[in-house]
Amino acid sequence: MIQSIMEEKKALIDRYLETILSPDCGEHKILYEAMNYSLLAGGKRIRPSLFLLLLEEGGLDPEMYMDAACALECIHTYSLIHDDLPAMDNDEFRRGRLTNHKVYGAGMATLAGDGLLTFAFQLLSRQKGISPDVRCELVRILAEAAGPAGMVGGQAQDISSEHRRLSLEELRVMDACKTGCLLCAPVDMAAAVLSLPGEERDILAQWGRHIGLLFQITDDMLDVSGTLEQMGKKSGQDEVMDKPTYVTVLGYGEAARKAQDEAQQAAALAARLPVFGRILRDLPLYLIERTK
Amino acid sequence: MIQSIMEEKKALIDRYLETILSPDCGEHKILYEAMNYSLLAGGKRIRPSLFLLLLEEGGLDPEMYMDAACALECIHTYSLIHDDLPAMDNDEFRRGRLTNHKVYGAGMATLAGDGLLTFAFQLLSRQKGISPDVRCELVRILAEAAGPAGMVGGQAQDISSEHRRLSLEELRVMDACKTGCLLCAPVDMAAAVLSLPGEERDILAQWGRHIGLLFQITDDMLDVSGTLEQMGKKSGQDEVMDKPTYVTVLGYGEAARKAQDEAQQAAALAARLPVFGRILRDLPLYLIERTK
Repeated sequence: MIQSIMEEKKALIDRYLETILSPDCGEHKILYEAMNYSLLAGGKRIRPSLFLLLLEEGGLDPEMYMDAACALECIHTYSLIHDDLPAMDNDEFRRGRLTNHKVYGAGMATLAGDGLLTFAFQLLSRQKGISPDVRCELVRILAEAAGPAGMVGGQAQDISSEHRRLSLEELRVMDACKTGCLLCAPVDMAAAVLSLPGEERDILAQWGRHIGLLFQITDDMLDVSGTLEQMGKKSGQDEVMDKPTYVTVLGYGEAARKAQDEAQQAAALAARLPVFGRILRDLPLYLIERTK
Repeated sequence: MIQSIMEEKKALIDRYLETILSPDCGEHKILYEAMNYSLLAGGKRIRPSLFLLLLEEGGLDPEMYMDAACALECIHTYSLIHDDLPAMDNDEFRRGRLTNHKVYGAGMATLAGDGLLTFAFQLLSRQKGISPDVRCELVRILAEAAGPAGMVGGQAQDISSEHRRLSLEELRVMDACKTGCLLCAPVDMAAAVLSLPGEERDILAQWGRHIGLLFQITDDMLDVSGTLEQMGKKSGQDEVMDKPTYVTVLGYGEAARKAQDEAQQAAALAARLPVFGRILRDLPLYLIERTK
């Protein structure tokens, strides 16, 4: 059930993403091509789907909020492009295709990332059907989640910690920023659009943090157990790069147990927020069972 | 006169910039250090100064709009950090110091740029004393100016056009995006904050375009005539990189005449907008006489 809902949202997002970036002039053709190359490479679209799903459960028509949803995917895609750069992880494959810089060169890939990051805020500022004060709130939530105290901070910690043993606590802080913040953003953004009261926002935010951690642990596990075919990128890269992950720090079995634990804690919050009960209960199971 | 006003605004901005970025946790210390390294390297602060100057002439207290002003400088600084990267211009010096990647490495410099770009929108979203609809308008203006149809588009054209002859028209389009857009942004942003009527906005925007072009031409001229001491970076780099500039396309003398022409056209607009007359007339002269 949740699987088909997620697939339906993904299809909606894929269709919309195809329409948002067309070059304003001939001179910028290659840049837009590079941005679209990664944006339309068929990701799981988890962040924008989560946002739309929560809006729908809250009684809104998801198709009215596609700009804000796609802003999340633009940020996510830019982070992958920059993360893959030779100066960072130096990855050759992503989602089963050559990485952006392998096709367009590192300079253009850097700019494609910059372009997507900036364009995300254009999308938010033009989202119709939301009052200006809530739109400003969305800008604040997304910028904080993606910025130096959020995702970029986590990435910085990540490149500083290669070849170094991290404690479980250091790893938790890093992942909370690197992956967690951008998975909490759709939850916080949906709460803002729905104008939920403070207490409900807190429960949703708490759920978002469990989901973020769960997602990261399963990601680390898939890096070990996933195949190139499933993942679209080489597995075992974390070990090659000597990167601290939940699997390298805790071991595979303990990481799997921790993922189960996070999923249960997230699902348990469903009882406290019956309106969103179905998603709060089902999505953690969906994430823990994913194979890519 | 205009010189001392610009210096006074620069001092105000320098002081404020020192306060805006402090690490949220110990793990992000190096990232914030890298961002501050470039942000506090003592640029001319032309974009935020221009914004504050126009607000002041329009009757507002500039000190109340420092977050929005500094958002412009964060965007400008990020663009310099990424522009200097080995994958782009591969510059070693900027503002008389080693470039960001020479000190922190290309990975961290990429992230410092990403962090500053994202933080700019955090600054806009938290700017007090502006109604939410105008704040959204500022986000739209800055994102459009800095994004793929603006500055990033110009940069992409720039790296694609090395070792290639550009026509004057191609050069004009590239520079209008690469430099022009982010010099027009403070003008458009000030017009939005002051809620100027459409006709006055159009005149200011027209002035902004002349200023942007004037700035780029003088920049190209200074790359030839400036000294390392004045410029804080090596001169003659455009020729080394075989980059098309107004000097390489038109020759130095013709470029100088074109700069004069732009300055006069900009200054002539002062008569049509007496409230801002002093700035509209004096700033073009200030820019054409600059030596760094």
